Amino acid sequence: NFNSMGNGTFNQRYLITDQYWEKGFGPIFFYTGNEGNIWEFALNSGFITELAAQQRALVIFAEHRYYGKSLPFEKDSFNIPQVSLLTVEQALADYAIMITELKQQLGATDCPVIVFGGSYGGMLSVYMRIKYPNIVAGALAASAPILSTAGLGDSREFFRDVTSDFESVSSDCTDAVRGAFHQLKELAQSQEYHHIQSAFALCKPLSSAQDIHQLNGFLRNAFTLMAMLDYPYSTHFIGNMPANPVKVKKDNMSACLCLFHLAGIVYNATGVLTCFDLYSLYLECADPTGCGLGFDSLAWDYQACTEIELCYESNNVTDMFPPMPFTEEDRRLYCSKRWGVVPRPGWLNIQFWGDALSTASNIIFSNGDLDPWANGGVRTSLSDSLIALNISGGAHHLDLRGSNEADPVSVISARKTEADLIALWVKMERTRLQKFV
Amino acid sequence: NFNSMGNGTFNQRYLITDQYWEKGFGPIFFYTGNEGNIWEFALNSGFITELAAQQRALVIFAEHRYYGKSLPFEKDSFNIPQVSLLTVEQALADYAIMITELKQQLGATDCPVIVFGGSYGGMLSVYMRIKYPNIVAGALAASAPILSTAGLGDSREFFRDVTSDFESVSSDCTDAVRGAFHQLKELAQSQEYHHIQSAFALCKPLSSAQDIHQLNGFLRNAFTLMAMLDYPYSTHFIGNMPANPVKVKKDNMSACLCLFHLAGIVYNATGVLTCFDLYSLYLECADPTGCGLGFDSLAWDYQACTEIELCYESNNVTDMFPPMPFTEEDRRLYCSKRWGVVPRPGWLNIQFWGDALSTASNIIFSNGDLDPWANGGVRTSLSDSLIALNISGGAHHLDLRGSNEADPVSVISARKTEADLIALWVKMERTRLQKFV
Repeated sequence: NFNSMGNGTFNQRYLITDQYWEKGFGPIFFYTGNEGNIWEFALNSGFITELAAQQRALVIFAEHRYYGKSLPFEKDSFNIPQVSLLTVEQALADYAIMITELKQQLGATDCPVIVFGGSYGGMLSVYMRIKYPNIVAGALAASAPILSTAGLGDSREFFRDVTSDFESVSSDCTDAVRGAFHQLKELAQSQEYHHIQSAFALCKPLSSAQDIHQLNGFLRNAFTLMAMLDYPYSTHFIGNMPANPVKVKKDNMSACLCLFHLAGIVYNATGVLTCFDLYSLYLECADPTGCGLGFDSLAWDYQACTEIELCYESNNVTDMFPPMPFTEEDRRLYCSKRWGVVPRPGWLNIQFWGDALSTASNIIFSNGDLDPWANGGVRTSLSDSLIALNISGGAHHLDLRGSNEADPVSVISARKTEADLIALWVKMERTRLQKFV
Repeated sequence: NFNSMGNGTFNQRYLITDQYWEKGFGPIFFYTGNEGNIWEFALNSGFITELAAQQRALVIFAEHRYYGKSLPFEKDSFNIPQVSLLTVEQALADYAIMITELKQQLGATDCPVIVFGGSYGGMLSVYMRIKYPNIVAGALAASAPILSTAGLGDSREFFRDVTSDFESVSSDCTDAVRGAFHQLKELAQSQEYHHIQSAFALCKPLSSAQDIHQLNGFLRNAFTLMAMLDYPYSTHFIGNMPANPVKVKKDNMSACLCLFHLAGIVYNATGVLTCFDLYSLYLECADPTGCGLGFDSLAWDYQACTEIELCYESNNVTDMFPPMPFTEEDRRLYCSKRWGVVPRPGWLNIQFWGDALSTASNIIFSNGDLDPWANGGVRTSLSDSLIALNISGGAHHLDLRGSNEADPVSVISARKTEADLIALWVKMERTRLQKFV
């Protein structure tokens, strides 16, 4: 830890396999874990092990402090002030130290290190390469919204892009969704709470505008997840999702016409729920795209309250959702009340270079055009070693997933480019390391 | 602050002059303040203002947190845990935020920023360029021992190089110094403390081996300061020093033969002291090259106990001083007792790239060959934008000082190269910034 908590240490979890490694020589592929249990990412990032088999690499998946089992203060981790050691800078330092230590222990001091990450994990990969190029030879940052989370860009973009996904499949669908939200609003205005409860099979009666707000968030989140996880095959990542969930609606307009069916796809994929509990299935937090559930959601909420800016709004003009603003001022009020902290707009932009990445090198920014996070990332190559890859028909970090026969050609091609660039960086790094022998 | 002290703020001092600035267009020359009152550095870095006059730059000298008047917790700043917010990372973040804010306030958002620093300030300049190239276009790091302070290199080098300075002027001198220290040792062994006290005009009687140890440190420090501050004209920086203090001894062997005279040059330049108080004139701390005095010495001691590694030893074999080891273990014991912290050997090397700087750009590493700190820095250019300059006959960051008619040709030439490179970086940065307009 950098400071005032002193020199305490904590147990941090990592997964490692040397199954494919050319011991002492092959590269190290290091996944910079993000906001969740590291197993969740390891099980949904098959590409990394496939590539390790090809390139004879050691594979490490490191868990981010304050997530999964890597809780520095166990059950007290989310008390104040214990939670304050949850920062991006500390997480990066953890990885820098972990890599250095493991290289020593494993006799791998001369092995080039490539970092991988998806989403916030991809942001961390970029940050590792720009802040620790002494340790990391290159980064594959899949679906990393490094610009929008630094407060750059348009706050309306995210939900506009969720809407576009559905729009591109069928404009009838988005019209129907707008209509359904409008109906819901009218029912709410006339306080027909009972009607709403039964239409949505809610476990508890509704009684306030706050409940309606929660319901709107719950529903908007279902669309967000479907857009993010619009993979060409069914997945078990951030819940269960059928193949092509967005497209499902093209074939069957029922989910668009009836938001209840939609909620069922996302929140009741296994069909075991008999009713929806709004407040346990969806948590409103400082991230309008959803904080998930459990301890991990606490940690992410804290990060969204401090360094990571997610002031995305829906407004029913540029998107199909009810107007749900989330301004810097809303964020400030919420975070101050919830965590006793004042967010720092602009900090990530200062600390992690924002759009001034031109002096960096050896980073792949991959994004899928179905992914609402994509336009918050780098979409155009900045130099011949800062490469933006677009994956046509790809959802949230599809390229990191293992190969699947339903994969579109675009992702197969992107993975090939990624493999070639990584092999090149590994080769270059060997040359650099040899200079110091 | 990064974390657990919350979102407190403190007053940080900076000096600014727009006397030469082409308002809204000229570059910003930013001195990354180091371990002391910022006025001390501003008054001894005349080159920066001379260059500002040529290149029409705004000049800012920023004071490092916990030094000078920039004490976050006033008189409590050096209590535990308040002192724990004194880290290199925090200091860099202060500068990053200060530059960003001042650029806004002064209508200077498109003005390229060049950072300058000497010694630890030069290390900070390098770190600013490598960690914040989004904000800083280039760095002039004068006499910055970025390798040795990261634990790289030979712990015997520093005092060997102090010795070499005297040796190169006259080997008779170093022989005499060895002899004098040997005499002192013999007197101490036979406990002739009274004799020693009168020979050195010490204010207080000596009574223990600890006192002798302190006396040895006090004397060794006098040689260190003379070597560091061996400027061709008299100066008032870290005390008063005559011109060419090392050479003084060539002309007059008395100081070499008699360590008492030597102490007088350094500790009693103004001649007002009638005796030397060993413990008030020299502070033993986690920096064997000396911590200075006052609050600033507390802060530096803390930094030498946490991130900055200064385990330099004298041994009487590779140098002319008494054996005074300072191992990592000595450091650990001292720091644990003094500050309740455990030093982190290797941390600066991980965090600030050590000798793996090849992916950086736009840094000048200047060093003078008289300076015992020089060989702890970068002495060979690493690329065509990572330039090492050697200043023949130069002491500690002589190039940052204002022009003087006693300047050797080497420093005049180095300043010219520095000016040209800085003008080039400013021009390149304008091109980069314009791309984003």
